[in-house]
Amino acid sequence: MDGAESLARTLVACGVEVCFANPGTSEMHFVAALDRVPGVRAVLGLAEAAVAGFADGYARMAGRPAATLFHCGPGLANGLANLHNARRAHTPVVNIVGDQATHHRPHDPPLTADTEALARTVSCWVRTSLRSEDVGEDAARAVQAALAPPGGVATLVLPADCAWGEGGRPAAALAAPARRMPAPEALREAALALRSGERAMLLLSGPALTERGLRAAARIAQATGAELRTPTQVPRMARGRGRPPVDRIPYVVDAALKVLEGVRHLVLAGARPPVGFFAYPGKPSTLWPADCALHRLAGPAEDVVGALEALADELAAPPEPTFPALAKPEPQRGPFRADAFGPTLAALLPEDAIVAEDAVTSGRALFPYTWAAAPHDWIQITGGAIGWAFPAATGAAIACPARRVVCLQGDGGGMYTLQALWTQARERLDVVNIVFANRRYAILQGELAAAGARPGPASEALFDLGRPALGWTKLAEGMGVEAARVETLEAFADVFSAACRRRGPFLVEFAI
Amino acid sequence: MDGAESLARTLVACGVEVCFANPGTSEMHFVAALDRVPGVRAVLGLAEAAVAGFADGYARMAGRPAATLFHCGPGLANGLANLHNARRAHTPVVNIVGDQATHHRPHDPPLTADTEALARTVSCWVRTSLRSEDVGEDAARAVQAALAPPGGVATLVLPADCAWGEGGRPAAALAAPARRMPAPEALREAALALRSGERAMLLLSGPALTERGLRAAARIAQATGAELRTPTQVPRMARGRGRPPVDRIPYVVDAALKVLEGVRHLVLAGARPPVGFFAYPGKPSTLWPADCALHRLAGPAEDVVGALEALADELAAPPEPTFPALAKPEPQRGPFRADAFGPTLAALLPEDAIVAEDAVTSGRALFPYTWAAAPHDWIQITGGAIGWAFPAATGAAIACPARRVVCLQGDGGGMYTLQALWTQARERLDVVNIVFANRRYAILQGELAAAGARPGPASEALFDLGRPALGWTKLAEGMGVEAARVETLEAFADVFSAACRRRGPFLVEFAI
Repeated sequence: MDGAESLARTLVACGVEVCFANPGTSEMHFVAALDRVPGVRAVLGLAEAAVAGFADGYARMAGRPAATLFHCGPGLANGLANLHNARRAHTPVVNIVGDQATHHRPHDPPLTADTEALARTVSCWVRTSLRSEDVGEDAARAVQAALAPPGGVATLVLPADCAWGEGGRPAAALAAPARRMPAPEALREAALALRSGERAMLLLSGPALTERGLRAAARIAQATGAELRTPTQVPRMARGRGRPPVDRIPYVVDAALKVLEGVRHLVLAGARPPVGFFAYPGKPSTLWPADCALHRLAGPAEDVVGALEALADELAAPPEPTFPALAKPEPQRGPFRADAFGPTLAALLPEDAIVAEDAVTSGRALFPYTWAAAPHDWIQITGGAIGWAFPAATGAAIACPARRVVCLQGDGGGMYTLQALWTQARERLDVVNIVFANRRYAILQGELAAAGARPGPASEALFDLGRPALGWTKLAEGMGVEAARVETLEAFADVFSAACRRRGPFLVEFAI
Repeated sequence: MDGAESLARTLVACGVEVCFANPGTSEMHFVAALDRVPGVRAVLGLAEAAVAGFADGYARMAGRPAATLFHCGPGLANGLANLHNARRAHTPVVNIVGDQATHHRPHDPPLTADTEALARTVSCWVRTSLRSEDVGEDAARAVQAALAPPGGVATLVLPADCAWGEGGRPAAALAAPARRMPAPEALREAALALRSGERAMLLLSGPALTERGLRAAARIAQATGAELRTPTQVPRMARGRGRPPVDRIPYVVDAALKVLEGVRHLVLAGARPPVGFFAYPGKPSTLWPADCALHRLAGPAEDVVGALEALADELAAPPEPTFPALAKPEPQRGPFRADAFGPTLAALLPEDAIVAEDAVTSGRALFPYTWAAAPHDWIQITGGAIGWAFPAATGAAIACPARRVVCLQGDGGGMYTLQALWTQARERLDVVNIVFANRRYAILQGELAAAGARPGPASEALFDLGRPALGWTKLAEGMGVEAARVETLEAFADVFSAACRRRGPFLVEFAI
């Protein structure tokens, strides 16, 4: 058995069912092994930036890693931005990077690069197999590393000779360590803070945003009056009617500072201490007040759900939280406004949908309006590397074929990874892509003004996407995805509803 | 003056006239500086993979670097693959990477990554400015480093606070070292080898492939009978009627070994010793025969043109080379065949055109047929990271607005960086893009067969681009570029000729 086949068999043994790939010559023997070994579905992406986002979206919804397949250092490099988003979300991903044969690499042929250095920038675990005999065990360790709490990107570099060489030995799955409960002191400290009578906030991320985690947090809020918030970006969140609504810390620093003003105790439940997305002259980096104490209830790798439930019990919270029932909103009319689009989307969102969001300018404001939608999961760009939603939605649809995926994508970010649309068409995925076509990098226009500068020729040249206007319906159709352009909420409602009733992908360009 | 303005002024002082950019928030002050400081043209790309390729194509034709502008580590990461191609071509490029403020970085906000580690994988020079006062001098050193022979990628990381902070001091240009003549021993050794009467080959790259270098090489060939070749990929080559035709070492290892069979002396003129692009079981890594001696006439950083001319004189070669005059070929008819497309393109190529080639499967075979075209420059993917030609053609057109650029792009590679088409439309560049739409990763199908494997479900899923078929005319039109699809050489000839007569970009999808 060659090393490549031992890799394929090991991935199957470890529960890896999908390989998102953009292969090249050095991966040929692994592809041939996937041809022979059943159990791993190969899904092609036409650009590695898309492939990496597929793997992120897939694992956020499946709860287990997919494999990726990249071609040498430059192929991996193309995927790094969305792997960065995955890293920030603690998403388990197993990268397989085919590379130069060990004896060929010293000759430095043209496609040779420092693959390990590239991998280390996003990975919690990096290894290059050096013998065919080791590939199986290395792969099992990669899956284990990706799954070890809090989850991460593991990268296995596979030199071509280790793939084609004989002596491969498939390995069995290795158990990943379980999440552990935080120390009792952490619970006691949090309870003390929440009982202090001073203003307190629980900051929730990771598994705290599952339905179970949210319900425990809502019990705590009810018992103590603590406010619930999430960081500005979170990997995944259970939302919709019947689930406790929790808002984000705003992206804009001044707004964030206002939200945290007066908070004396910030209890971190799976979240890191909140900091500004960027620095600004004269503004602080950290968002909590000087007289606010931080309390770490549970770190990202710990059993945050167990900790929240234990804390709720400790605080003698009611066994079930109560919170206001939200009425299903009505679709709105007229041109795009985030506060009108939000209720419209909430009214029309199918039951048990998955929403993938990478729409900085248009996406922020619509978020609170969607608490009243049917129950759904919301996944979101986490690392700020835009171009995430088209691919993440694609991966989520592979993970959850019975669910409708709704992709909220800004046009600027969408142009980074529009290649993902082709994979949606090829795999006939039930994704409705909504592109917010404001035809500019609107966030940058705002930031320029915030920097006290007036627009000039360079900023005009660099922030405007309207000359020429991007024709999203043609771009989608060119990749086999049906599409329509709308300019009003009522037209959107018609098109979106119809798109949700049919099979396969669709794209709605909302001209803003 | 803030650091950002000192950077803009320094770039102008160093002769940097263009900044290819995909900016983000942390670059706001530099964009504002470009608004205030005249002399640097800002050109937007909608994906960093395109932006990096713009800079490569631009500098290959302009002979001086453009600046790029990327947003933090993930923005740079998206550009690394085409920067890898630039590195392999020794193209001068000055990357400006806006990044987290120095005081904000320790808080590890979401978009933070190891920017320097990413930069080092492609750069000959990397520095992070740490004070506004240093930015100007750091920028001058970056330009100098990019221009130092043989040329390379220099990366300056600009933390946001160093951009917005006061105390900026513009710096004057620093002289880059000149190319030096190789040691006299190198010339003597090469002359001895070429006079030996044994079979010899001159392997030419870099400046050896300018018209002057080629004429000197042709004189040597005439005087000694030495064969002339280039490596499989070269950065740029002067070609066409009236210029010495020189063929490449083939990409396929067996064909390359055959070309070098019997060669006893391989004289390297700006080229590295030839090695296989990839390793294959049982095949050698190095392509020259065991009994062939390598002679380094001039390294990539040396004055290879001067060395060739000195060698020709030393060998008492005729002052002007003679070589067979090639008749202008006739356009061919019928479906696509590389050996019929080549003469057709050669017949129709406008005088003084620039050809940008990243068409592995279709591009290899047409190359020799284009020696008989009107004089032109041919630039080519050099590092194997596909998705190069659309962006490189775009950059070349910015560098040479009076010349027609013809882009030869395979459909697989084209999908990596199709965003470049939008920039062609925005800047109204005279580029005719030809997409070879074979609707598959044909090279991989060949490699799979070469590996002795038969196609199965995974390779079918991963190598076929035909389900759904990519609609290149719609993709182009969606980005503002007019387009047509052709299926025959006669239709191609009509469309191509018309496209060459009009202003602005055009795309021809050649269905193969």
